[in-house]
Amino acid sequence: MTAGSTAPVDYASLKKKFQPFLSRRVENRSLKCFWNASELSDDVIELAGGMPNERFFPVESIDLKISKVPFNDNPKWHNSFTTAHLDLNSPIELPIARSLQYAETKGLPPLLHFVKDMVCRINRPVFSDETESNWDVILSGGSNDSMFKVFETICDESTTVMIEEFTFTPAMSNVEATGAKVIPIKMDLTFDRERQGIDVEDLTRLLDNWSTGPYKHLNKPKVLYTIATGQNPTGMSVPRWKREKIYQLAQKHDFLIVEDDPYGYMYFPSYNPQNPLENPYDSSDLTIERYLNDFLMKSFLTLDTDARVIRLETFSKIFAPGLRLSFIVANKFLLQKILDLADITTRAPSGTSQAIVYSTIKAMAESEMSSSVSFRDAMFESWIKWIMQIASKYNHRKNVTLKALYETESYQAGHFTVMEPSAGMFIIIKLDWGIFDRPDNLPQQMDILDEFLVKNGVKLVLGYKMAVCQEYSEQNSDFLRLTIAYAKDDDQLIEASRRIGNGIKEFFDTVRS
Amino acid sequence: MTAGSTAPVDYASLKKKFQPFLSRRVENRSLKCFWNASELSDDVIELAGGMPNERFFPVESIDLKISKVPFNDNPKWHNSFTTAHLDLNSPIELPIARSLQYAETKGLPPLLHFVKDMVCRINRPVFSDETESNWDVILSGGSNDSMFKVFETICDESTTVMIEEFTFTPAMSNVEATGAKVIPIKMDLTFDRERQGIDVEDLTRLLDNWSTGPYKHLNKPKVLYTIATGQNPTGMSVPRWKREKIYQLAQKHDFLIVEDDPYGYMYFPSYNPQNPLENPYDSSDLTIERYLNDFLMKSFLTLDTDARVIRLETFSKIFAPGLRLSFIVANKFLLQKILDLADITTRAPSGTSQAIVYSTIKAMAESEMSSSVSFRDAMFESWIKWIMQIASKYNHRKNVTLKALYETESYQAGHFTVMEPSAGMFIIIKLDWGIFDRPDNLPQQMDILDEFLVKNGVKLVLGYKMAVCQEYSEQNSDFLRLTIAYAKDDDQLIEASRRIGNGIKEFFDTVRS
Repeated sequence: MTAGSTAPVDYASLKKKFQPFLSRRVENRSLKCFWNASELSDDVIELAGGMPNERFFPVESIDLKISKVPFNDNPKWHNSFTTAHLDLNSPIELPIARSLQYAETKGLPPLLHFVKDMVCRINRPVFSDETESNWDVILSGGSNDSMFKVFETICDESTTVMIEEFTFTPAMSNVEATGAKVIPIKMDLTFDRERQGIDVEDLTRLLDNWSTGPYKHLNKPKVLYTIATGQNPTGMSVPRWKREKIYQLAQKHDFLIVEDDPYGYMYFPSYNPQNPLENPYDSSDLTIERYLNDFLMKSFLTLDTDARVIRLETFSKIFAPGLRLSFIVANKFLLQKILDLADITTRAPSGTSQAIVYSTIKAMAESEMSSSVSFRDAMFESWIKWIMQIASKYNHRKNVTLKALYETESYQAGHFTVMEPSAGMFIIIKLDWGIFDRPDNLPQQMDILDEFLVKNGVKLVLGYKMAVCQEYSEQNSDFLRLTIAYAKDDDQLIEASRRIGNGIKEFFDTVRS
Repeated sequence: MTAGSTAPVDYASLKKKFQPFLSRRVENRSLKCFWNASELSDDVIELAGGMPNERFFPVESIDLKISKVPFNDNPKWHNSFTTAHLDLNSPIELPIARSLQYAETKGLPPLLHFVKDMVCRINRPVFSDETESNWDVILSGGSNDSMFKVFETICDESTTVMIEEFTFTPAMSNVEATGAKVIPIKMDLTFDRERQGIDVEDLTRLLDNWSTGPYKHLNKPKVLYTIATGQNPTGMSVPRWKREKIYQLAQKHDFLIVEDDPYGYMYFPSYNPQNPLENPYDSSDLTIERYLNDFLMKSFLTLDTDARVIRLETFSKIFAPGLRLSFIVANKFLLQKILDLADITTRAPSGTSQAIVYSTIKAMAESEMSSSVSFRDAMFESWIKWIMQIASKYNHRKNVTLKALYETESYQAGHFTVMEPSAGMFIIIKLDWGIFDRPDNLPQQMDILDEFLVKNGVKLVLGYKMAVCQEYSEQNSDFLRLTIAYAKDDDQLIEASRRIGNGIKEFFDTVRS
C-alpha cells in the first residue's frame, strides 16, 4: 500500500466502500441454516448433519497415474510418471472420506491453502494486510461458474459493464442475465506488444465525457470485465503501462475490474522469423524465477491499492476442463457475498475434482522433493514446472503455426496478416483486402469465406461472431480465430495452416472474379 | 395418459401451457455462442473450439477400487470388490479424454442414458409419449444446484411457493433469493403411514379459499416444493392416496410440483416391536421387482398426466455427496429453460464425478454379468442391488436406534414419543410434556434441552429451526431430529440413544423442579 493512501484494509472499511457495488438481489440471499457451526468436543456423537458415513461410499480407493510431462511418451516410468493413491484414510490431509463427503462451499482446505499461497507468490494484492486476512480465495466450478457468481453479486438492471469489443461472448450472457447492460470498449488490434489490447485513450475519453457520450442513457459503468492476458479471441495482452492507466481510470471513475485470466500462464516470447522454431522455454537458462518475473504478465491485483480487482483463474487450461474447477480472488467483503451466493446455489465444487488436482500436484512434488526446500515450496515449484511445460508446448505450437501460415501462397500474396499472439491459445488472422474495397457486408463475406475454409477441410471461428456489438466493431471484424490447443500434433497444425491459406486464396479468387 | 385427456404431448403444447410459469428473468437468458453446432465431416481439422488436446492433461489413468457391499470388510477380494480402469482411451464410451474435456452441459451421454433409463423403469411419467421424447433428464451439481436452477427458472418476485411447514431450510433460501415468497403448509405429524405428511384437507381449504385466507395479499401459489418421501426432517412419506389428491389440487389450482427426492430409495418397512432387528431387506424373498414395486413410493411423475411435475434426484445419499452430482426430470419445455440457465452459469457438472459414477456402476454390472440379460439390464440391476444394500443398512440402523430409544428410562417414563420414519435417514423425537403445560417459549425451552443433550455428549437438530415459519408451527416444533447416517456403527447409535434419553430426562427433571 502506498504511504498515506486511504486504502480499506479491514472488513469494516471494505464494507463501507464496496456495499454500494452490490446488486439489488444480494439482500435476498442468505443461507437458512438449521444447524449450529459451534465447535463440539470430540466425544460428542454427531447426529445432526445429514452426512452418510463414508463407508456407505462404493469407492474404496482411487489410484492416479500422473504424467509429469505433457504429451508424454517416455517409456521410462520412474522418470516422467508418478502415482497418487487416495483411500478412505489417505492422504491424511485429504482422504476420500473427506473429499467424497459434504464439504465447505469455499473449497477443501489443503487445495485452498495451496491456491492462496500461489496467488501470494505470483500476484499478491497490493492492498493486502500483513496477515493476508483482508483478501481471500474461494474455489468455484469453472470460470463460467465464477463469472456467473461474480456478476450475480455485483450486477443488476441498473449496472453498465464494459467489455473488450471482442470477447468470449458467454461472458455477455452472464452479465445480461442479471439485467445489466454491456457496452464494448475499443481495442488496439496490433501485434505491437506495447500498444495492443484495450485502447486507453478511447476509454479515457468515453469515461471523462460520459454524460455527453454515446451511452449517456445508461448509468456510468460499475464494472470492467477484461481478459487482459492472451485475450480471447485476439491473443493480445494489455501491457503494464496500460494496466496502470486503466487502474487509474478505475479509481477516478470508481469501477471494479473483473480480470478473467484463463490463459495467462501460456506466455509467448516473440516469434523469431530468423529462427521460427526457437523456443526459450527449452533453454536451460529459464528458471522458475525468470518465468514468473520476466514472462508472466502481472495481474491487476499487483496494482490494486484499493481492493477493487476481482481475479478469476481456472484449472481448465493447465489441468483439464472436465474438472470444472476454478478460483476467485477478491477482497474479503466482496468475496463473502460471492460465497453467500455459492452457499445457496452450487455449494462446493466437486470434491473428486478437488482431490484429483490436489493429489496430482502433491505427487509431482513428492517425486521431485529435495531436502533443501519445504514441502510448500516443493508443491509450488512442481506445479509451476508443469505449467511451464504446458506453456512451452503452446509456444512451440504457436511457432509451428505461424511459420506454416507465413509459408502459404495466400500469405505471400498479401491476402492476410497474422496478429502474432503474446499469450494463450488463439491466433487471429486478419484479412487484407488490398486493392479491393473492404466490403460493406462483412459478416456475409466472412460466412462465404467460412464455406471456402470448410470446403478445404478446416474450421475456425469468425471474428464478427465474437463482437460485443457487431455494428460497433464492423470495421475490425474481418478476422478468423484459430486455436492451437486441440490439434493432435505439429503436422496437423501445418496441414491446417495450408488449408487456411488455400481457403483464403480461393475466397479472394472468387471475390476478384 | 388417460383417454380423452388434453395432456400436452408435444413441445408446442408444452410451451403454450408452461410459458406462463417462467420467471421474469428467463427472457434475459441465452447463451451467446460464437461457434456453430454444425456437424463437420471427419477430415475437417477443428481449430474452432478452445479445447486443450487431452494429452495436455496430467492424469493418464484412474483406477478405482469398488466395494460392492457397503461397510465392506470382506477380505475375499474377488467376491465383494471389483475394479474399474479409466484412461485416455477407455472405456471406449467414456474415456477420460472425454470426461476431463469440456462437455455437454446436460451431462455425458453414457451416464445420462443410464439415468433416463432408470427413471423410465421406476417412475416413467404418465404424460410421456411413446418415444420418451417429451420429457428428459439433465445432470446437475447436487440437489442444491438443481433446486437453484429450478427455482430461478420458475420463480420471481410475483411467485408464491408452498413448502411443508418443516423442511430442509436451504430450499427456502433458494426460493427467497429469486424474490419469491414461501408459505408453510400443514403436515400431519404421525407415524400412521396412511395419514402422515402433507395435510390434504388443510391444503384444500387453503387453496379453495385463497382470496379470503391468511395469504390473500400474495398471488396464488404457482409451485409446491415437497420432499414427499422420507421427508427431511420428519422421515415421513406422503401416502399414495394423498399424492393423488395433491395432484388433483395441482390441476385444479394450476401449480407445479417440485418433488425433491434424495432419500426415497431408503424405504423402511414398519418396525416390529416383537422382533426389533427384523430386516426384510435381508430376506431371500426380496427381489428387485418386489423392492421396486412394493417398497418404493412412486414419484408424482407416475400420476403426472399433464407434465407439471419436476423431480429432483441425487447421487449424494446412494453414492457420495462430494461428487456434487444430481439430476432433474421434467417436461421438455421446462427442462430446456433450466438447461438454458445451466448453459450460462455452471455448465456441466464435474466430468470426473460423472466418470467415477458411470465406471463404478459399469464395473458392478460387469462383475455380475450373466449372459441372459442385456448390458443395459445388468447396469440397472447391479445399481438397484447396491441401492438395496444401502437401504438395508439404513433400515438396520433405524431398528437399532428405535430399539435403543425405546429402552431408555426417559422413554419409559413417557418423556417423548418417536415418530417412526417410513424412509430416509432421519428420526424425529417428539417431547411429551405430560402433566406439564406445553411451555409458551418453546424455542427457548428447546435451546435449554439442547444444552442438556450436548452435556450428555450428543448433538441433534432442534425441530423449530427447520420450521418455514416458527410462529405457524410453534405447537408442533417441540421435536428433535437425529440422523442415523453418520454414526460409525450400531454401538455408537445405541450409546447416542442412551445419551439422548439421559439428556431429556435431566431436562424434564429440571423443568419439574
